[in-house]
Amino acid sequence: MIANFNLEEKFKQIDAYWTPKIVGELNGQYVKLAKLKDEFVWHSHADEDELFMVLKGTLTMEFRDKTTQTKAGEILIVPKTVEHKPSTNGEEVWVMLFEPKSTKHTGEVEHEKTVKELEWI
Amino acid sequence: MIANFNLEEKFKQIDAYWTPKIVGELNGQYVKLAKLKDEFVWHSHADEDELFMVLKGTLTMEFRDKTTQTKAGEILIVPKTVEHKPSTNGEEVWVMLFEPKSTKHTGEVEHEKTVKELEWI
Repeated sequence: MIANFNLEEKFKQIDAYWTPKIVGELNGQYVKLAKLKDEFVWHSHADEDELFMVLKGTLTMEFRDKTTQTKAGEILIVPKTVEHKPSTNGEEVWVMLFEPKSTKHTGEVEHEKTVKELEWI
Repeated sequence: MIANFNLEEKFKQIDAYWTPKIVGELNGQYVKLAKLKDEFVWHSHADEDELFMVLKGTLTMEFRDKTTQTKAGEILIVPKTVEHKPSTNGEEVWVMLFEPKSTKHTGEVEHEKTVKELEWI
């Protein structure tokens, strides 16, 4: 089915941080949106690369050997197996994610923040 | 390799219309940027769904049974096999595309606008 939607309208439907919501599907990949604030957990994905497109605010990503900043209008791609820990500098950050349907947002780590079943919005 | 880049900086490197450039790769998919103006050709992709995220201007997409408008900040997903014809209303439109590495931008159609080998920027 042809999908045509506005990202800001979708973000209005998200009320929890670190809880990605699915907004689109193509070629076995999901397009997800998430609101982030403060810190997430260290994790990696064994088999999946992960794309973060920042739409609002600045995303800080810690890696074991460096830290990156990704601002609105910028894209960060994290290859599979690379450990990473997202955080924001106290602000609310909006990101769009592209990743295979199989990807869990906490990777190999089971954590209280792990959302078992992602919802479509 | 970890990639972290600014979309506007990448767009500055594009000087031709309807000529997608590759800016990222993940999970067998390419992230591409393209500047569009005026009309493209009717085409479809036999095996690949296609995502257009509009970053500037308004993208018009004709389908055989309807026409959609997708503005900056909006996403259009065209399922495989669905014939479509992109155009802009005379303005320059910037889009980000997300599609399998195998996707040709003119789909099954060989056309003077078909770019054989896409470049990375």
